[in-house]
Amino acid sequence: MQTRMAYLNETHDPALQSWVDSANIPDNGFPIQNLPFGVFRPAASAQAFRPGVAIGDRALDLAALARARPWPGAAGEALAACQADRLNGLMALGPDHWSALRLQLSRALRGGSPMRQALEPLLHDQAGLEFALPAHIGDYTDFYISLHHATAVGRQFRPDNPLLPNYKWVPIGYHGRASSIGVTGQKFPRPVGQTRPASEGGEPGFGPCERLDYELELGIFVGQGNPQGERIAITGAESHVFGLCILNDWSARDLQAWEYQPLGPFLAKNFASTISPWVVTLEALAPFRTAFQRNAGDPQPLPYLDSPDNQAAGAFDIGLEVLLSTQRSRAAKLEPALLSSSNFRHAYWTAAQLVAHHTVNGCNLQAGDLLGTGTLSGPDQGQEGSLLELNQGGKKPVALPWGEERFFLQDHDEVILRARCSKPGYPTISLGVCAGTVLPARL
Amino acid sequence: MQTRMAYLNETHDPALQSWVDSANIPDNGFPIQNLPFGVFRPAASAQAFRPGVAIGDRALDLAALARARPWPGAAGEALAACQADRLNGLMALGPDHWSALRLQLSRALRGGSPMRQALEPLLHDQAGLEFALPAHIGDYTDFYISLHHATAVGRQFRPDNPLLPNYKWVPIGYHGRASSIGVTGQKFPRPVGQTRPASEGGEPGFGPCERLDYELELGIFVGQGNPQGERIAITGAESHVFGLCILNDWSARDLQAWEYQPLGPFLAKNFASTISPWVVTLEALAPFRTAFQRNAGDPQPLPYLDSPDNQAAGAFDIGLEVLLSTQRSRAAKLEPALLSSSNFRHAYWTAAQLVAHHTVNGCNLQAGDLLGTGTLSGPDQGQEGSLLELNQGGKKPVALPWGEERFFLQDHDEVILRARCSKPGYPTISLGVCAGTVLPARL
Repeated sequence: MQTRMAYLNETHDPALQSWVDSANIPDNGFPIQNLPFGVFRPAASAQAFRPGVAIGDRALDLAALARARPWPGAAGEALAACQADRLNGLMALGPDHWSALRLQLSRALRGGSPMRQALEPLLHDQAGLEFALPAHIGDYTDFYISLHHATAVGRQFRPDNPLLPNYKWVPIGYHGRASSIGVTGQKFPRPVGQTRPASEGGEPGFGPCERLDYELELGIFVGQGNPQGERIAITGAESHVFGLCILNDWSARDLQAWEYQPLGPFLAKNFASTISPWVVTLEALAPFRTAFQRNAGDPQPLPYLDSPDNQAAGAFDIGLEVLLSTQRSRAAKLEPALLSSSNFRHAYWTAAQLVAHHTVNGCNLQAGDLLGTGTLSGPDQGQEGSLLELNQGGKKPVALPWGEERFFLQDHDEVILRARCSKPGYPTISLGVCAGTVLPARL
Repeated sequence: MQTRMAYLNETHDPALQSWVDSANIPDNGFPIQNLPFGVFRPAASAQAFRPGVAIGDRALDLAALARARPWPGAAGEALAACQADRLNGLMALGPDHWSALRLQLSRALRGGSPMRQALEPLLHDQAGLEFALPAHIGDYTDFYISLHHATAVGRQFRPDNPLLPNYKWVPIGYHGRASSIGVTGQKFPRPVGQTRPASEGGEPGFGPCERLDYELELGIFVGQGNPQGERIAITGAESHVFGLCILNDWSARDLQAWEYQPLGPFLAKNFASTISPWVVTLEALAPFRTAFQRNAGDPQPLPYLDSPDNQAAGAFDIGLEVLLSTQRSRAAKLEPALLSSSNFRHAYWTAAQLVAHHTVNGCNLQAGDLLGTGTLSGPDQGQEGSLLELNQGGKKPVALPWGEERFFLQDHDEVILRARCSKPGYPTISLGVCAGTVLPARL
């Protein structure tokens, strides 16, 4: 616990309250202990996007605050980096700067702060904002760190060999498509492509995807990168992580089944990926650190993937939810249906291990790179992170409370992913919402 | 042939000569019929990188020329886009602009041009230049379009199943790493990573790669992109291709064999990739168009991958060579050894088909994206595009003329890829050189 406590500081005091009233409402999710970063502008405006921080149901314009130069030193340098339309500059500065800025923001937004008068005009209602991607994403890597997902999906693709021999040793990952990543609210046409021939040796099918799925993931934004050729050691790996968001790795299962061998998924994934707009820093998540879980019989990670800190507190207790609304449910003004709930703590590898693995061969990460965790299914029923798992490989439809059922996503379905950290005696820390909608295919 | 001739215009007249004398030397490779685009600055300077065009052994500074605004219309707009440190702006303008600029450059650099006096001060010796990546590469995709390579490598990884059933239908591709792509002259440490356990169920190996290889590829730079959700039809696909370069997709075979299932290569590839500095436009390559080859019994491509133009002239006759120099050969001042020769015309898919396939699901390409062809092995012995093929899966070393032999690359080995188009009665069109050197691993 000593290791774990070392991450905590005055910004984590559960008694802190903000002069922004909505931040103090229980379970608001954006209390003064959170302070996630994003990029926004007033909706339906032609104004420039600018970095901001969420507080309650409002968002503070950091670009405007930066022009007032309220702070010297590292906090001031970090704030100055927020005078751009993306967070890459702030991300590249590293954890001392992030922490210094977070501390000043915490003090400025606390009840009784003398800065209240200066800051109030810089607040926007979140409901009136349009969000952009928090960073220019140079490269996007998607991992596969849920043993439960890998086993469940592996069983469908390779019934006799669900979990491959490398899984428990290698944090399996592959490169994804950066250009098609969008922020919550993304709408995209159902992808079109080739599917497996009806009979062996026959002509493949071609048309709109019939097995369109979501994947419940978290995204890890890289802060400071590493020079090409120099690895990041596991002991310092977390200092290269700026923060976490929610990620939906939309997947066309029928395209994937036909195209994925031998080089992995391609068109099955690269038509769209959606992330939540707010990036929650590792510092904000520190009270929810937890021990890195392994089951009896699982191998000890190789030394480059192992450290006492990682074992003691490298995982995070982040609750995850998948909800679905359909054209019919929205017409009837019904609440979205909860499809499943999971938790990031079930993952087989930690964020630090992903960074160490990604760079062990000298691959250079850059500020703003995005690492997806892979689908975060849990061990139990009701914790499936994709329809492919919920429907048991297309065998059993998912019943929706308003009478519809789904094997896979239909046109106009909206998938809503949520993530939040909760524990007694501490304000709820939300990662916000990642929503996206399927439009009809364009033929 | 009517289709093919439609690509040709006055810039292709084989009788054209330049007032830059070296451009007229037979087999120089950068005659006035070529005019490839790149980005450079004087070596060992702190000057800004700027776009330029190669002519003979010199390079014309297009940023400086742009300041003089010599041309109105599309050529002028294209030239104005060259006032940046990358070619993305020019690439995004599209083929009418590229063609207009090329025509004006061809006229300005021809013998007798009244612009000679104005242009001479803007020429640099190529030997004194440092090159940068021609474009900011937003996303890098690597394909696998040599049937011969896929079969040869497939035989080693899956002896009973070398060519998977999807190969002749799907242009197989996967996403690669953009951040680690460098330009010719790139040096990188030997990658380190996990390798397959010595015995089944045992602990994996960990250490420097022992099976480091090159892959002989071409790179395709995307020009104008497409909006997300809208596909690019095969009939117009080539208008989205700015040009071609040479690409070495360095590969760590032992890392790859252990990590690649089920999601494809990752650390085995993403430590470094090297490209040549000059991008040769499709217009410059037009005289070397050739019919798209299929063998009897190969299926007709699906309609979205098929067009009369693609069948008649969608392939290119581009000769390719792999050469190797070693620490020992350089010390003895010996010429690099030729390891193999191949040709782009042996590929199973064309550039147009790759663009159409990549976007059929709505994936958005962007100006400056790079598509690798995959290893361009030919059908015959001596046409292998990688050491893995030359050494028959590690069984037979490659003998070098100075007495060394190689299964895989050793530290300080330099791999030199060359590409050029030749035919009687037409000047040789070179794609230049793509060289890279392996440094010792950093442990």
